[in-house]
Amino acid sequence: MITCNKNRIQNKIETFAKFGGTDKGGITRFALSKEDLQARDEFARRMKNVGANIVTDDMANVYATIPGSEKGLPSIVMASHTDSVKNGGNYDGILGVIGAMEVLETIVNNKIPHRHSITAMIWTNEEGSLYPPAMTSSGVICGKFDKAEVLASKSPDGKTFGEALLESGYVGDEANRLNPRDYMAMLELHIEQGPVLEAENKQIGVVEGVVGMVNYRIKTHGQTGHAGTVPMSFRRDALLAATSAIRYFHDEFGKLERDLVYTTGEIFCHPCIHTCIPGFVDFSLDARHKDPSVIKQVVDIIEGIPKELDKCKVSYEMRWKRNTVSFNEEIINCIQKSVDAYGYTYKRMYSGAGHDAQYVAEMLPTGMVFVPSKRGHSHCELEHTPLEDCWRGINVLLLAVLEIDQKDRI
Amino acid sequence: MITCNKNRIQNKIETFAKFGGTDKGGITRFALSKEDLQARDEFARRMKNVGANIVTDDMANVYATIPGSEKGLPSIVMASHTDSVKNGGNYDGILGVIGAMEVLETIVNNKIPHRHSITAMIWTNEEGSLYPPAMTSSGVICGKFDKAEVLASKSPDGKTFGEALLESGYVGDEANRLNPRDYMAMLELHIEQGPVLEAENKQIGVVEGVVGMVNYRIKTHGQTGHAGTVPMSFRRDALLAATSAIRYFHDEFGKLERDLVYTTGEIFCHPCIHTCIPGFVDFSLDARHKDPSVIKQVVDIIEGIPKELDKCKVSYEMRWKRNTVSFNEEIINCIQKSVDAYGYTYKRMYSGAGHDAQYVAEMLPTGMVFVPSKRGHSHCELEHTPLEDCWRGINVLLLAVLEIDQKDRI
Repeated sequence: MITCNKNRIQNKIETFAKFGGTDKGGITRFALSKEDLQARDEFARRMKNVGANIVTDDMANVYATIPGSEKGLPSIVMASHTDSVKNGGNYDGILGVIGAMEVLETIVNNKIPHRHSITAMIWTNEEGSLYPPAMTSSGVICGKFDKAEVLASKSPDGKTFGEALLESGYVGDEANRLNPRDYMAMLELHIEQGPVLEAENKQIGVVEGVVGMVNYRIKTHGQTGHAGTVPMSFRRDALLAATSAIRYFHDEFGKLERDLVYTTGEIFCHPCIHTCIPGFVDFSLDARHKDPSVIKQVVDIIEGIPKELDKCKVSYEMRWKRNTVSFNEEIINCIQKSVDAYGYTYKRMYSGAGHDAQYVAEMLPTGMVFVPSKRGHSHCELEHTPLEDCWRGINVLLLAVLEIDQKDRI
Repeated sequence: MITCNKNRIQNKIETFAKFGGTDKGGITRFALSKEDLQARDEFARRMKNVGANIVTDDMANVYATIPGSEKGLPSIVMASHTDSVKNGGNYDGILGVIGAMEVLETIVNNKIPHRHSITAMIWTNEEGSLYPPAMTSSGVICGKFDKAEVLASKSPDGKTFGEALLESGYVGDEANRLNPRDYMAMLELHIEQGPVLEAENKQIGVVEGVVGMVNYRIKTHGQTGHAGTVPMSFRRDALLAATSAIRYFHDEFGKLERDLVYTTGEIFCHPCIHTCIPGFVDFSLDARHKDPSVIKQVVDIIEGIPKELDKCKVSYEMRWKRNTVSFNEEIINCIQKSVDAYGYTYKRMYSGAGHDAQYVAEMLPTGMVFVPSKRGHSHCELEHTPLEDCWRGINVLLLAVLEIDQKDRI
């Protein structure tokens, strides 16, 4: 059974870890930063070395393609991202790029026959750390975001994404964009970013889609006052009401499906002075599940919250909503065949996190492969996936590409 | 019965409301700001006009004194502050200064005989809005704070309190400080800053002291993670634990004395991203009561909190503690006599808020008079005390000073 080269993978992980490497072993590599351009240059250098043709599109996405044996067939693309969050880890995104490179190298070095062209690709600004929103370029190319709006997105120091693109030297022709005529399918290898594969002792996640979500802002409206002078019976404490609301959601959501996840990650208290009774509190509420009927139940609970808690008015506002994305059945089958061929243990699962693949899924047959994240750590310097797990994931990617290569079209 | 002049009081309220006046009818008048110096200049101008002698001390506190008929007797001082919080109101602090001015004017204009000198005084930087801590100058003069440390206190734009003092032109001789040899007693008229007098339909608060307090920082230690990828059963959500802790304190404190007050006014969630499970939360906990045994029960509850809530470690740290301050019995009796003479309705009460008077109480016989705050609003632009209530409070101040004047020493 053909496999990729473990030493070569390790070398790539170590090499890319230097571009934006932090003291604590993580990376800070914002999209189109100096460090990101170093990573892109390294990608291009290595891909040229295996004979790939490099092009970029108008969003600075990079495509490294080796030709197939049959003319006129669309290309099979493997893609992920090189950018990171602040003090992120060495696997989120970059592992998918390393995997794509390694598959191309393995195919070239082992002279594995393939009919379709095969492309290793970098998506620009998946994290959106400096220039929101996340998944900027897949969003633009797949028609989710308006390009002009995205170009105007500003980093905290005032630079626009458009300016950063121009300065990068990586802007190419819009005609080079990923598209359903020239490309047949996209695969994305990624770390799970959660603890489930490790806990269940599975080597591979065969990803069936990305869960749907709702994001609300909940507000409690009380009356600020002096912490020393207002007797308890007179108070309308917005933070006390917020704790009641958070508990209420926690208890009610706890009655729904066991795999529903819900999070209050942000809370702001006003005026936020230790000698003042909080007069106004707002907090986020994020809930995710693959089944739209469960999300509907979540929405009913949120919008059915008592209008008053602890003598404070409670209001809510839906900030956004994402429908569940299901990946292509044939692609999932190719990934499953590949996993079975190696005899790896696996779990069929949905991604709880967003990925470029979810936007691409609306344009091209798309699928994802997950590998375990140690203790579920992600978006932090502790992020780790053992080399053996990376290697298995890249092997699955390799065979899945060759499976897809058997088909003319999906 | 002698009373002060309501029109003159209204004129003073309106005049001082201009120094730092905001669009919404409040004031922002930070200590030693241009606006505060305008207020001090106006105070000095008006006091000179009634024949008072003006001196300042090394903390820029201002003393306007009219001489008494008997030489060698200590002075009776009435004091409060001219500075405000950001977007504060027209009564906190300044009403006590206006009251002191009005009492001097009434005594001079009506040629009311008095044995002791009588002083109207401004304390510098009671609020500590730009230069913490609050009650800076009474704290220094009464030996609570180290002067050198206080001078080094910096405003958000980097200026030190020491620099602001020098620039003010109001720095005088340290020998001019309030002291127990040259001064006999201090009275402070202040708004209640709470809703009790209004709710109980009382015209005057006869203040017996300032409640003791403890201030804690409570921390919950969980594990951050991705809001989409970590199943609920794996989570250690520090914000969920914080809501449990806040509820726990609320329920336990609710079993103690009815007039105990307790407040969580600040809460910070880390990393505070709507797609991240909070890994660490810290919040403030302020509790106040006049009875030290109740504060002891509060401390026992705080320090007895379960070491773990919602799978998160819980820790606490006492930030500071203030013992209950009791005002001088003879001074309280003089205030009570004054209230009774006018036949005003009153309530004997403790102040829940801190005041310069609490530090002075350890140096001189001290007392306070409260007037009602509309709906308990304070430290905001809605702060309001009707003219009639201000007038009654100033009348009480006048007669209390004349009561004290009957005594040689307290």
